[in-house]
Amino acid sequence: MTLKIIVQSIRTLSYVGSYRKIKDRPIKLYCAALVGAGYMAYSQHKKNTAEMKEIIQLNNYMAEPITPVSQLEKNGEDMKTQMELLIMRIQAEFCRALEKEEDEAWNDEKTVDEYDFDNDVYLPHPDAKFKVDRWTRKEGGGGITCVLQDGRVFEKAGVNISVVSGKLPPAAVQQMRSRGKKLENAELPFFAAGVSAVIHPRNPMVPTIHFNYRYFEVQDKDGVQWWFGGGTDLTPYYLDEEDALNFHMTLKHACDAHDTTYYNKFKKWCDDYFYIPHRGESRGIGGIFFDDIDQPSQQEAFKFVTSCAEAVVPSYIPIVKKHKDDAYGYYERQWQLVRRGRYVEFNLIYDRGTKFGLHTPEARYESILMSLPLNAKWEYMHEPKPNSPEQELMKVLKQPRDWLNVEKAQARRSTA
Amino acid sequence: MTLKIIVQSIRTLSYVGSYRKIKDRPIKLYCAALVGAGYMAYSQHKKNTAEMKEIIQLNNYMAEPITPVSQLEKNGEDMKTQMELLIMRIQAEFCRALEKEEDEAWNDEKTVDEYDFDNDVYLPHPDAKFKVDRWTRKEGGGGITCVLQDGRVFEKAGVNISVVSGKLPPAAVQQMRSRGKKLENAELPFFAAGVSAVIHPRNPMVPTIHFNYRYFEVQDKDGVQWWFGGGTDLTPYYLDEEDALNFHMTLKHACDAHDTTYYNKFKKWCDDYFYIPHRGESRGIGGIFFDDIDQPSQQEAFKFVTSCAEAVVPSYIPIVKKHKDDAYGYYERQWQLVRRGRYVEFNLIYDRGTKFGLHTPEARYESILMSLPLNAKWEYMHEPKPNSPEQELMKVLKQPRDWLNVEKAQARRSTA
Repeated sequence: MTLKIIVQSIRTLSYVGSYRKIKDRPIKLYCAALVGAGYMAYSQHKKNTAEMKEIIQLNNYMAEPITPVSQLEKNGEDMKTQMELLIMRIQAEFCRALEKEEDEAWNDEKTVDEYDFDNDVYLPHPDAKFKVDRWTRKEGGGGITCVLQDGRVFEKAGVNISVVSGKLPPAAVQQMRSRGKKLENAELPFFAAGVSAVIHPRNPMVPTIHFNYRYFEVQDKDGVQWWFGGGTDLTPYYLDEEDALNFHMTLKHACDAHDTTYYNKFKKWCDDYFYIPHRGESRGIGGIFFDDIDQPSQQEAFKFVTSCAEAVVPSYIPIVKKHKDDAYGYYERQWQLVRRGRYVEFNLIYDRGTKFGLHTPEARYESILMSLPLNAKWEYMHEPKPNSPEQELMKVLKQPRDWLNVEKAQARRSTA
Repeated sequence: MTLKIIVQSIRTLSYVGSYRKIKDRPIKLYCAALVGAGYMAYSQHKKNTAEMKEIIQLNNYMAEPITPVSQLEKNGEDMKTQMELLIMRIQAEFCRALEKEEDEAWNDEKTVDEYDFDNDVYLPHPDAKFKVDRWTRKEGGGGITCVLQDGRVFEKAGVNISVVSGKLPPAAVQQMRSRGKKLENAELPFFAAGVSAVIHPRNPMVPTIHFNYRYFEVQDKDGVQWWFGGGTDLTPYYLDEEDALNFHMTLKHACDAHDTTYYNKFKKWCDDYFYIPHRGESRGIGGIFFDDIDQPSQQEAFKFVTSCAEAVVPSYIPIVKKHKDDAYGYYERQWQLVRRGRYVEFNLIYDRGTKFGLHTPEARYESILMSLPLNAKWEYMHEPKPNSPEQELMKVLKQPRDWLNVEKAQARRSTA
């Protein structure tokens, strides 16, 4: 096992080492990467050998599960139960991790007067905790929406789970068929369970993160079809290459433990998906994105999604800790607000989930739109100054990078 | 003629008088309505009897026309020329009227320190003038985009004209066919000229206005088809019933001078169009909206659109003057920003013009998105307090009003 971890760590380092920019300042980054890669490989290994079955942990969840506990207990082996328990746990773990950052900021007296200097409209609440809304849906199921607003570290953080069932409208079936699903063209019974979150921090040096992991079942005359989908992606306002690298590396490890072709494929899918065509730029620096995962087996696919969902905290929280007290001013705040305007443009015009959600009758639009930032700005003809940090970010958004040099490594292997 | 004006004024008053809320405080409103109605009827009459032909006024326009002046001179009788000259004039007149409000605010020293109290991020420029961008399009034509940003009265004001020609993509032809246009299903040559504007004032007591007037020609094997479209609508943050009444009355007069069935029809069309289905609320208090106007004759239709476009300044500027120095605070500003978030939702998710524009290859997205406010806010589960002015507005947005009691008056006439 130790050998496997070392091999995995060294392979990661070979990607990092071949990355041009990193080569210029190797020692610090090699050390960080070695520790990070080793830790990730170890925890991944531990997870894979352990029992993957989710167990009910009522005391830890943000609210009572949507499905009655007796039913969850009875159907513990069913993937519907397993997925509901997974998203309940992920929601709680992520919310607690964010609340911890808030608590630390509030306990640290030094920071109390530091947050007004950008002269922004800002009334932080000393007890910034998630507001928890458990809601139900007439047609079947419901969700738990947790939102923390106007915190010291997080301007707006939304973490939502939903467990819904009912009949899929023909338009939705049509959309699935157009993706290649072999489904009857009719109103079909379905089940969907997913967790999704968007975190907009206050400090422009801390990136926004989004993730979503979901499980789908649709029944037609030939039986039940199931699949998983999801992804995690990062939207920085200022580029920190070390952060970008660690973020992608963490996701790559989560993927590699299940299929070494996944990261490369899903990284590209993510770059293609989170793209704003009218501006010719990406929403952020990507991550992973996938849909229709229905192999090698239901259990294996679930394990993969579990790994991805568990990688969210280690991929993001270290970045929050590193930058949440960074100095910034009026100018950086304005840039952040302009970029948040772009975030709104992507979500309202192009995001399939948002569109699908808003066009669903009786949709809980507050849960769908919790992804929108607390504040956003649209300046006519806004252009970053040449050679500014803002323009540095724009370069990466106009031309997505192969952060871990996976393609180069692949090319090397295939010619070897 | 005098008799006609008096009759028109009295008819207007009968609408106003039968309106329940107005009955409670009749004298002030009757006087206002009488003066307004008389003035409008007079100016309408004057306009209708005068020569309607637009003439070239190079010195007054915001920039050089898109079509070469020699060509405009040669084809002075062509509707394409007439419409281009109309929108050039309307753009200039509206921009000057707005700049005048800015100038007055800056010259009035008393206001200099009044505008910071909401503690908003706000760096007004003492020389708030429209920035003028004249742009051209590879395929044919171009436009003139005028934007005033961070003014004292206007937070963001965009007034755009475009004069474009080329080949309509099949999707656009399809969309027109689905509206009932009899057009060949092919790539068709087209011409479009239009003016559109969205004005977002700083003071939450001043409403946002939007208007758009356009002329379209499409050629297929059976010849050229032409039509006009457009509308003007108001989005207040706080409801002032007198303003709403005067706004709608001004639009009604512009309509009535051409066809007494227009206002009622186009008011309803406006309410139906500027609707946000996922929230079950209107964007604002409406106005008029129409499309596919191709009768009684091209000249008559042009005269109607001219009247509507000329009604923009008298429908809006008095409201700006009345409220631009109203007192407001942090709370009112926050409400305005939340409502601006709704404006963004409508424009990015539902507005056909925005969607059509952004999906057009090589679209000038900065001109399309100039309609978005400088600042907007999304608060999770924002709810106005019971019996608050904010809730008063929401009632009207949830249930559009027949401001001038036109339907009741019609019912009376039809039973008489």
